[in-house]
Amino acid sequence: MALKNFFDARSVAVIGASRTSGKIGNAIVRNLISSGYGGSIYPINPRESEIEEHTAYPSLGDLPEVVDLAVIAVPAARVVDMVEDCGKNGIKNLVTITAGFKEVGREGLDLEKRLLEICREYGMKMLGPNCAGMMDTHVPINTSFAKGFPLKGDIAFFTQSGAMMIAILDWSYAAGLGFSKIVSLGNKADLSEIDFIEEAANDPYTRVILCYIEDITDSARFLKVVSQATRKKPVIVLKSGTSQAGAQAASSHTGALAGSDLAYDIAFKQCGVIRARTVTELFDLAVAFAKSEAPRGPKVAIVTNSGGPGIITTDNVELQGLEMARFTKETLDALREGLPAEAGIYNPVDVLGDAMADRYRFAMEKVCSDPGADSVVVIAVPTATNNPTETSRTIIDMKQKYPEKVFFGTYMGGEALEEGREILSKGGIPCYTFPEPAISAISQMVKYSQYINSGAECEITFSNVDKRSVKAVFYDVLRDNRVVLLGSEAADVARAYGIAAAPISLAGTPEEAVDEADKMGYPVVLKVASPRIMHKTDVGGVKVGLGNQDEVYRGYLEIIENCSHHMPQAYIYGVEVQKMMPRGTELIIGMTRDLQFGPLIGVGLGGIYVNLLKDVTFRLAQGLSHHEIERMISETKAYTLLRGYRGEKPRDMTALLDAVGRVARLVLDFPEITELDVNPIFAYEEGLSAVDVKITISVS
Amino acid sequence: MALKNFFDARSVAVIGASRTSGKIGNAIVRNLISSGYGGSIYPINPRESEIEEHTAYPSLGDLPEVVDLAVIAVPAARVVDMVEDCGKNGIKNLVTITAGFKEVGREGLDLEKRLLEICREYGMKMLGPNCAGMMDTHVPINTSFAKGFPLKGDIAFFTQSGAMMIAILDWSYAAGLGFSKIVSLGNKADLSEIDFIEEAANDPYTRVILCYIEDITDSARFLKVVSQATRKKPVIVLKSGTSQAGAQAASSHTGALAGSDLAYDIAFKQCGVIRARTVTELFDLAVAFAKSEAPRGPKVAIVTNSGGPGIITTDNVELQGLEMARFTKETLDALREGLPAEAGIYNPVDVLGDAMADRYRFAMEKVCSDPGADSVVVIAVPTATNNPTETSRTIIDMKQKYPEKVFFGTYMGGEALEEGREILSKGGIPCYTFPEPAISAISQMVKYSQYINSGAECEITFSNVDKRSVKAVFYDVLRDNRVVLLGSEAADVARAYGIAAAPISLAGTPEEAVDEADKMGYPVVLKVASPRIMHKTDVGGVKVGLGNQDEVYRGYLEIIENCSHHMPQAYIYGVEVQKMMPRGTELIIGMTRDLQFGPLIGVGLGGIYVNLLKDVTFRLAQGLSHHEIERMISETKAYTLLRGYRGEKPRDMTALLDAVGRVARLVLDFPEITELDVNPIFAYEEGLSAVDVKITISVS
Repeated sequence: MALKNFFDARSVAVIGASRTSGKIGNAIVRNLISSGYGGSIYPINPRESEIEEHTAYPSLGDLPEVVDLAVIAVPAARVVDMVEDCGKNGIKNLVTITAGFKEVGREGLDLEKRLLEICREYGMKMLGPNCAGMMDTHVPINTSFAKGFPLKGDIAFFTQSGAMMIAILDWSYAAGLGFSKIVSLGNKADLSEIDFIEEAANDPYTRVILCYIEDITDSARFLKVVSQATRKKPVIVLKSGTSQAGAQAASSHTGALAGSDLAYDIAFKQCGVIRARTVTELFDLAVAFAKSEAPRGPKVAIVTNSGGPGIITTDNVELQGLEMARFTKETLDALREGLPAEAGIYNPVDVLGDAMADRYRFAMEKVCSDPGADSVVVIAVPTATNNPTETSRTIIDMKQKYPEKVFFGTYMGGEALEEGREILSKGGIPCYTFPEPAISAISQMVKYSQYINSGAECEITFSNVDKRSVKAVFYDVLRDNRVVLLGSEAADVARAYGIAAAPISLAGTPEEAVDEADKMGYPVVLKVASPRIMHKTDVGGVKVGLGNQDEVYRGYLEIIENCSHHMPQAYIYGVEVQKMMPRGTELIIGMTRDLQFGPLIGVGLGGIYVNLLKDVTFRLAQGLSHHEIERMISETKAYTLLRGYRGEKPRDMTALLDAVGRVARLVLDFPEITELDVNPIFAYEEGLSAVDVKITISVS
Repeated sequence: MALKNFFDARSVAVIGASRTSGKIGNAIVRNLISSGYGGSIYPINPRESEIEEHTAYPSLGDLPEVVDLAVIAVPAARVVDMVEDCGKNGIKNLVTITAGFKEVGREGLDLEKRLLEICREYGMKMLGPNCAGMMDTHVPINTSFAKGFPLKGDIAFFTQSGAMMIAILDWSYAAGLGFSKIVSLGNKADLSEIDFIEEAANDPYTRVILCYIEDITDSARFLKVVSQATRKKPVIVLKSGTSQAGAQAASSHTGALAGSDLAYDIAFKQCGVIRARTVTELFDLAVAFAKSEAPRGPKVAIVTNSGGPGIITTDNVELQGLEMARFTKETLDALREGLPAEAGIYNPVDVLGDAMADRYRFAMEKVCSDPGADSVVVIAVPTATNNPTETSRTIIDMKQKYPEKVFFGTYMGGEALEEGREILSKGGIPCYTFPEPAISAISQMVKYSQYINSGAECEITFSNVDKRSVKAVFYDVLRDNRVVLLGSEAADVARAYGIAAAPISLAGTPEEAVDEADKMGYPVVLKVASPRIMHKTDVGGVKVGLGNQDEVYRGYLEIIENCSHHMPQAYIYGVEVQKMMPRGTELIIGMTRDLQFGPLIGVGLGGIYVNLLKDVTFRLAQGLSHHEIERMISETKAYTLLRGYRGEKPRDMTALLDAVGRVARLVLDFPEITELDVNPIFAYEEGLSAVDVKITISVS
């Protein structure tokens, strides 16, 4: 669903155009004109004959042609009619500036829904309502009412906040930042960041896509579209509103461990989005990705005319997970011979405070011809001898001579370095005032290219899952007016999906308990079966290590007595008998459902201290690949144990990978599962055993 | 040891002054003159009669007075003579610019030592060598060769990198940053950041102290002096060189857990230093602390003319550990009544994009008279109606009217907001372009004022420690040609310092083992006694849960056989018999010695997974107070267990606090202890029991 003649509209009607300077309807017409827009501009206003030297028309019906795009800036009450009018007149693209819709409450929301219906009816695409408009510097076109027009560039910026459009635009001139497009997304009634990301991914004038968003409305489509876009171009997102979500009441372990913002973090990671944490970082990264190719690897060389900044940069290389390049003996010898005795020849190469451009050139030549460096960071401090202009020209020469290396400037100072910075910027070399953003950008670029090179991965699939049995269990549970499954029921569900669960059965009498224990073999554990009793141990509802019939019989009776005493109001189904499994590495596999992104699967160190250890990593269940599960497990501390810790034998990683995938499949197949924790699940040298499976379903 | 007539020298001699423009000896004279220095300037040069319109003198002996300060800029080979000459001529303060000392190697280091000797001999204070000089805008004086002179301000900046002085100076004009002093510390042969921090803490023109340092040479004095300074003024430090330290070979658990940079982190925390992580942060914080008082508490109110930036700011308030102010009903009613219907009246207060200064004023009035807000962040985006100049004046009015509130500006944009920013800056209100640094600064200010208000704390002391017994154990160990103590010896050391250790004895024969077991009572554990065997379990060197004489007898023999088989080369002293203690909460108390700061004490979750769990927090043993130990423990996950987790009884916190203090005392009293781990130490409802004490000492 590409946008057609939206940015590149051949003609634009401005509905609500005005002659009065200061009015939005006037600003839009002026902006269209001053942007250098080459198509036809038709102000629509029944009371005017001419606006800003363009003939005004009373209505769309009076226009000499069917326009490609209409910008609507009439009062909210009249917008519905106008949109309908656009549809009738064959217009396919709308920019609705007017506010007073979803953002003002119930009534506005209804109006907005009506707008969308009309758009659908006539096959129109709409940006807004409640937006500041859009700009494209390459068409060029400017349908916004904002003051100013961006410098031409290759950054596309889509923002859910109109204020951010205005603020960043004003700020961008001094920062020397150019844009291909800027779009204020407004209420996202129809077109959203997803459409514009898709569009920009195919736009030859855009090298990097930036987004400021506060929410995602269609997360499934976001994941699908953006996963594809990130394989073409970097997509950098600043997502705010993390604190708004508020505390989510979650009774399961897994739910409590997954923060409200976590799902976004994971979704972005899984679809290759680079997440910026601050506004500054958003644009620092944009500069790097827009100007430069990604380095081929993590090895950084530093050439500096001052020690201190060299050290700060070195620190950051390590901090950001990059590596300092190690030079070959030949490089070191050449540097030693050609540089003054006091110079630093190991990385960072310190060409000293009295270095002029020729010494920078010499050092850079040697560093660039060394196979060890993927990127070269050139630091310049405005000393008496340093000529930043010449230094910059030298860097650009080097870039041409060594196209496989990536260059970054860190020019520490103000006015004295301005010209040098400008030369770098024009020459396509990112330049920062301080070392930290440069190194952070290199790190993100390296990670991004690793992502690109990792290739697309397939969702893990299973044939041997038994949906029917699971359905049957859920049916019985609901019929019993419950939503929490008994342990034995949950184990049945797990087994139906091929997850090895320890033998467990419900016994309604001491005799039944003995029978079950005899069948599964001793020792066994007895646990009270009552969904009302959350912490069974605390009320004496658990007996472990029962080795014979007599102990089981007595255990049953004691449990019933304890629980009746402590929780007389809790209905007790009986006692569950579970075979006591040999102790393995205690893990948890769990699920929490995110309102946006659906089920998240967590895995990590389990046991009773799971909330204390906080060793659980998460992924979206949707689209989970084999490799992604591997990466997920490798991020946990549990991984160290699983590989064999302190002389212990490694655990069955294949079985664990499989089990995580199966849990993901289970919760995707059954949206009615609202909570699921398998804790602990023991991992052995061979196989697994799910000891405690907790499942809650919804009445749906 | 205050500096006398150093910055405020009444007369300055420039040794090595030159007439040649571009030479350092010329730049210094020019800088002195152009700084507006009011004292006498005496260029010293035997070949000139006049330099920059000041009479030149052939030597110090020819001067008409004893000068307060000499700046030395002669070649390195002549510096020693010149410094000696200064001493003979009664000069008490030196700034040695010349390079070619410690930084060029062995020979330079010897020269530098000689300089220091001469300084000591004549009672002179020296800045440098190898420095870029110093500046003071209030005297004013400029003895540097850097281009430019800072704007007057109240930030003192001390930097170990001369390049940072030059870079920040050049950058500061555009940033509008003013300084009281800037000092390039150079090689810190005599005067160091410690002296200048001490000086600046008492300097009425300095409100905030900034440091860029790469190392600390006298850590004991640093801790003492800086602890006092931070109680007077904020000290913000950017410490680099964290990656230089490299991997530290550390065989003990505690050593491996303490990173190379950790000691600095802890030292800074313990003496109240605010640690900046980036150059940008260093100056962002400087602006805040220089301009503003610290807020009284963590509650932030936001007044904004745009939603998006309000949300970003709200996110950051939570992220930085601050709180959003909750307004009273009266405030909300007033805001509801006075603002447009679409405005946001809950915090953040959104006065909408068409707000002019009067609406900002109204909202701020209400927010400021609400008791809930400690600080007020005003966000302005350059909309068509916003008049940032008027908005700034309004903020300044508010500041005068509500002096107990702290105001911060976040003016998002470029040129359009420039004048507004300047008004805020002059009015003493920190203003940033984006929300994140504003909120981060507020957070640091709140933390700093909590530190100030916490009051100074006394070092924990113990009377009942038995040094003599410890000495006796160490003597025996060394006489035995060992440095690693046996478990029984280490337990004796622990007990001598009042740390409860489980009964343990060395047995040389199976019969002795049985005797010892009888004495301490069953069950017991047997462990092979051989310092060469690190992982006793792996070689069958441990037997647990031995319940009677027979088991002990056989256990002894089996252990000896296993160990002789697996490690035939290891000398075996016998087998240690230890009473098996009831299982408590497994903790570790350990020590690692930092080269700079001496012993660090660590505490946290212990047991065999200690390296996996990484739940150990550290403090410097030196000066450790009772409250600091409490804070330290409260930072661990172990704390949750100790307070009673999931229905368990709380553990003996008093005993643990005491034990941590005693371990600190032990390692301070015995510098020959190079490694110490007590792991596990069981914590019970009452008391502790150290189960495994490992101590290594040095041959000293």
